[in-house]
Amino acid sequence: MKKPLILVSNDDGITSKGIRTLVNVMKTIGDVVVVAPDGPQSGMGHAITVGETLRLEQSTIFEGVRSWECSGTPADCVKMARHYVLRGEREPDIVVSGINHGSNTSISVLYSGTMSAAIEGAIEGTPAIGFSLCDYGHDADFSHTEEYIRKITLQVLEKGLPKGVALNVNFPPKRNENIKGIRVCRQANAKWVEEFDERRDPNGRRYFWMAGNFVNFDKGEDNDEWAIANNYISVVPCQFDLTAHAAISVLNEDWSIL
Amino acid sequence: MKKPLILVSNDDGITSKGIRTLVNVMKTIGDVVVVAPDGPQSGMGHAITVGETLRLEQSTIFEGVRSWECSGTPADCVKMARHYVLRGEREPDIVVSGINHGSNTSISVLYSGTMSAAIEGAIEGTPAIGFSLCDYGHDADFSHTEEYIRKITLQVLEKGLPKGVALNVNFPPKRNENIKGIRVCRQANAKWVEEFDERRDPNGRRYFWMAGNFVNFDKGEDNDEWAIANNYISVVPCQFDLTAHAAISVLNEDWSIL
Repeated sequence: MKKPLILVSNDDGITSKGIRTLVNVMKTIGDVVVVAPDGPQSGMGHAITVGETLRLEQSTIFEGVRSWECSGTPADCVKMARHYVLRGEREPDIVVSGINHGSNTSISVLYSGTMSAAIEGAIEGTPAIGFSLCDYGHDADFSHTEEYIRKITLQVLEKGLPKGVALNVNFPPKRNENIKGIRVCRQANAKWVEEFDERRDPNGRRYFWMAGNFVNFDKGEDNDEWAIANNYISVVPCQFDLTAHAAISVLNEDWSIL
Repeated sequence: MKKPLILVSNDDGITSKGIRTLVNVMKTIGDVVVVAPDGPQSGMGHAITVGETLRLEQSTIFEGVRSWECSGTPADCVKMARHYVLRGEREPDIVVSGINHGSNTSISVLYSGTMSAAIEGAIEGTPAIGFSLCDYGHDADFSHTEEYIRKITLQVLEKGLPKGVALNVNFPPKRNENIKGIRVCRQANAKWVEEFDERRDPNGRRYFWMAGNFVNFDKGEDNDEWAIANNYISVVPCQFDLTAHAAISVLNEDWSIL
């Protein structure tokens, strides 16, 4: 049987520990191609590079793995992989992104560059998974994720995914006790409440740092925040059709201007 | 009755013709506050500024309107408006974003800074609308949109919107015939197929321009692409819960690793 072709990207940049862990796991499963940002692209959401140029250079960072570093966003990386690096070759069998240094549960999925790379995969019709570790440290311990990343990736390669769906997988931080298992969940109802830390630069001009607190409104046990808090791995199937279908009939009934 | 407080943002930047048109319409409806990017932020998707500083300066660009220009993304602008500019004041009654110079139908909603500003409004529980004109010219004619923007905004102020929903409103370009009306639709099934235009800089190093063709796979008449092609205004209710709810039971049944 032919080995699967696995496209790897991330948003923390090609030098991060998370992508190195992910590449090492993927090498045990198939042929790996990496196209990842040349620097940090956290919080880039589904940004693409419009009106500016892109750079793409080959990298030797991963031994025995075809790798490129790109000046663009995670979404740009997947687009360049599909339509430039792998042009004329076979399509990837799966797109994996991460492992993100930090949580992408709940509303954070919208701001996540990790997930935008996965969703680009889904848009192209390729099964795709974004992996994140709920630990923001740059020397975070990823060792407990490897076995599960391998299992989840093999499961998706075997079973496929529903059309238009990418998986948002979050891991609890490394704890003393073992992970309890994998839970398929919905996105929790939570948000960030921002604070802007106002400072003065050496010229007396104001500038700001965005800071914020995460506020969870969700009391359910079927969501990703609950799963992580209870030491489960959360798997949220995500879609790129943003239509609020139920709202269509509401507007058609309520509005007098139609 | 108290005049509504209207927060205006966009992604083409505070000097664009589209936001000027939008501000002029909103001044006929309520009290207007503008927080918009200080330069173009197209294609920024739901990016936020993480790990870098933000600038925010008052602007005198709109006569009689409290206005700020921000160095960040459209999502940053709405966050700064809520948690800095309007801190301690009343909450806005509505967030409007645009008018975007160019289409945000179909899959473009994911890449759209215009819509990310509106969706930030929805996350905060405020009714929100992103307006876009399907004409990319910087001197595009917005005159045919004004009457409809006023009607749609007043309708939303009167009726509210379902929880967690922001509207993605697209206008056909100015044509000889009149607009046929407003259609509430779903996001069309379409995508961009990118091409990367490879060039050499004066030092001989490669760089790329992203280009692409829009491909519409959708044969239905209930979607935004159909509406625009047929000279209707499209209104797509959009949500920020990305969960593919139907896929949860599929994975729970299919997977052997749970």
